[in-house]
Amino acid sequence: MTLGRITRILARDIRFPTSRALDGSDAMNLAPDYSAAYVTVETAGGLVGHGFTFTIGRGNELCVAAARALAPRLEGRDGDDLLADMGETWRHITGDSQLRWTGPDKGVIHLATAAIVNALWDLKGKAEGKPVWRLLSEMSPDEIVALVDWRWLSDALDPGEARARLAARLDGRLARMAALRAIGFPAYTTSAGWLGYSDDKLRALVRAALGQGWSHFKMKVGGDLADDIRRARIIRQEIGPDRKLMMDANQVWGVDTAIAQMRALAEFDPWWIEEPTSPDDVLGHARIVRDIAPIAVATGEHCQNAVMFKQFMQAGALRFVQLDGARLAGVNEVVAVLLLAEKFGLPVCPHAGGVGLCELVQHASYFDYVAVGGSFEDRVLEYVDHLHEHFAVPVIVRDGRYMPPEAPGLSTEMFATSLEAHAYPHGAAWAS
Amino acid sequence: MTLGRITRILARDIRFPTSRALDGSDAMNLAPDYSAAYVTVETAGGLVGHGFTFTIGRGNELCVAAARALAPRLEGRDGDDLLADMGETWRHITGDSQLRWTGPDKGVIHLATAAIVNALWDLKGKAEGKPVWRLLSEMSPDEIVALVDWRWLSDALDPGEARARLAARLDGRLARMAALRAIGFPAYTTSAGWLGYSDDKLRALVRAALGQGWSHFKMKVGGDLADDIRRARIIRQEIGPDRKLMMDANQVWGVDTAIAQMRALAEFDPWWIEEPTSPDDVLGHARIVRDIAPIAVATGEHCQNAVMFKQFMQAGALRFVQLDGARLAGVNEVVAVLLLAEKFGLPVCPHAGGVGLCELVQHASYFDYVAVGGSFEDRVLEYVDHLHEHFAVPVIVRDGRYMPPEAPGLSTEMFATSLEAHAYPHGAAWAS
Repeated sequence: MTLGRITRILARDIRFPTSRALDGSDAMNLAPDYSAAYVTVETAGGLVGHGFTFTIGRGNELCVAAARALAPRLEGRDGDDLLADMGETWRHITGDSQLRWTGPDKGVIHLATAAIVNALWDLKGKAEGKPVWRLLSEMSPDEIVALVDWRWLSDALDPGEARARLAARLDGRLARMAALRAIGFPAYTTSAGWLGYSDDKLRALVRAALGQGWSHFKMKVGGDLADDIRRARIIRQEIGPDRKLMMDANQVWGVDTAIAQMRALAEFDPWWIEEPTSPDDVLGHARIVRDIAPIAVATGEHCQNAVMFKQFMQAGALRFVQLDGARLAGVNEVVAVLLLAEKFGLPVCPHAGGVGLCELVQHASYFDYVAVGGSFEDRVLEYVDHLHEHFAVPVIVRDGRYMPPEAPGLSTEMFATSLEAHAYPHGAAWAS
Repeated sequence: MTLGRITRILARDIRFPTSRALDGSDAMNLAPDYSAAYVTVETAGGLVGHGFTFTIGRGNELCVAAARALAPRLEGRDGDDLLADMGETWRHITGDSQLRWTGPDKGVIHLATAAIVNALWDLKGKAEGKPVWRLLSEMSPDEIVALVDWRWLSDALDPGEARARLAARLDGRLARMAALRAIGFPAYTTSAGWLGYSDDKLRALVRAALGQGWSHFKMKVGGDLADDIRRARIIRQEIGPDRKLMMDANQVWGVDTAIAQMRALAEFDPWWIEEPTSPDDVLGHARIVRDIAPIAVATGEHCQNAVMFKQFMQAGALRFVQLDGARLAGVNEVVAVLLLAEKFGLPVCPHAGGVGLCELVQHASYFDYVAVGGSFEDRVLEYVDHLHEHFAVPVIVRDGRYMPPEAPGLSTEMFATSLEAHAYPHGAAWAS
């Protein structure tokens, strides 16, 4: 089918009052209101792409405004042309030199770019009648390599080598697609361990999660050390010695503090410490990696762009790559980071949760498994059991594994009624 | 005098249509409209602080919106309390966890923080009747150290060592203040070398600058290599072998390209190459430093925060620290970077130009000279001869040197008539 012109790009401020129950509370983010700067790309042919970036409340209006500032770069353009060369389209969207100054390639303008780029990929999936994970998984190595802006990455991985590495994984794509559909993708849960929950609620949630078949559990740390120790002891008691316990400090420590705190928490055998310090501190993470081994370091949900991920990999500053599909500038930049991770032999365990991040980022992991990394080993996709009911194609999680969707698009579309009720500040959810 | 409550924080979108003459054009920023997200902090006592961040046009509205999002953190608070502990006030402004998510500590929200923090410092200078450079230069080491958020910096420089290093420079402060007032601070000019200018205009501007006493000249590179070579030859012919020629690529190269291009331009004896690649690429810069020596690497105008500067210094990835007083989150974070640079033995040569950056950032260099670095060696402050006429206390440049202002405040106040004429989009400058 023909899309025709992009007739309109609409950006909406959607917020959920999650802070009322302290869902999602951690040492840095005390009371988040999960929010989406939600973008629709409308075409003359009638097909609509849906995408978003994620924030935790105040400031969501800035991402909405930034999406509106980017919209004129696409409005009026031919939709089929734009989708036919998504690499060029990505460079065009990110190439407004005046807007770029406000990043560059980071923060509000980059988050808004993610919303728009993801909406275009949702549109592309719908136009081709495929879920985006499969659309990507069926691309040739040349087509995949063409999605990436290599300018600042090729010192670590040049496009020719990326093409060769992808070609080497062509064999087995179909078998891996079948395996994925049969058994799903491994996951872990963060729903139990938020800082704001009481010990009793924590214990009850861990038990409930065990009953649901979860084998990896993540807890928030970085408050008072005695509290962290008490809560870690509860979880380790409940899950036993063999299941994995991960910890997440949400950036609150300095480098030396991170090392000291993790030595104190080592007795609970954490598999990884996530965001031990500033997400900008590549060299600091590298030192933490060396000083707390065998505890691994995971980071990425605030890693601003592929240039930063490149350095984390070059410096040996992380062991688990927790890319975020709404902080990186959409699918194109996610593909870049997947290719880099494969080159450096690092597993990608995307950040999810919030609102819609599980729906969005599962596509990255499936594509990674089928066409890039080619393995489940050490891969776990984050799962948080919040707000899925607002999505037209919600994630399916069974026995602690994600099952891939077959519906066309990027799974980013929310119900119109949900959008209306959670429009900020006048939707019904905010009226009370 | 007593300031009383902060009654209102107003953010204005101020833009100058500089793209019409290609002032400020370079390889990345083809047609900038120099702009300010301009903030006034009004107090019950009547004193007003003025501050801004700088952008190059589109997207300025995002910084204005972000300043408005931050304003409620200060409005209604007691102004004297806020100014009495600027370290705590800085942490309070940057500590809204929901807004922080949209950075964190970078991009639009960080630029807006700069505007507000700088307005508070202008207010503090006016309240104490001193230019900010002198206000800082008369602080004790303890007071200076208390301005900085050390959480993510202390692995490179801890507050105790910073205090000791500042104390070791106490002797000589008065003599350096006198020297500064007598002979001024060394500067260089970027007014001649913009990419958009013709060869004839370039030659004429270089000759004019020579006549004004300039000894350091910066040209933009990163377009076509043959053009870069031709323009470098013109400038080197005009300035002779002894004056300094600096080059600025404004991030357009990848790491390997930067090395190759600078080898090709080495015959013109550049003193430094500025922004050879992505401003986020610490490790890439470190490689360029090693591979193009003795040409030095300078960067910083897009260095997003002190954590990034810390790593550039730890990795030996830059030789000249070009901090920007409106991209770092105002005076407090500038002080942090000055202290780090002194520890690592690196000269600070602030980025200036645009609109008001010269006025703003001169205060950092004077304070650096009097109380931190204590030397003129290898220090040059950028100067661009544009838009100074809009400022109540414009910079004074004589014989290629900046002369320090004595007027109270941060020199950030623009004339009300200028603000009105350049209000975007309805001011007179935009009506035509």
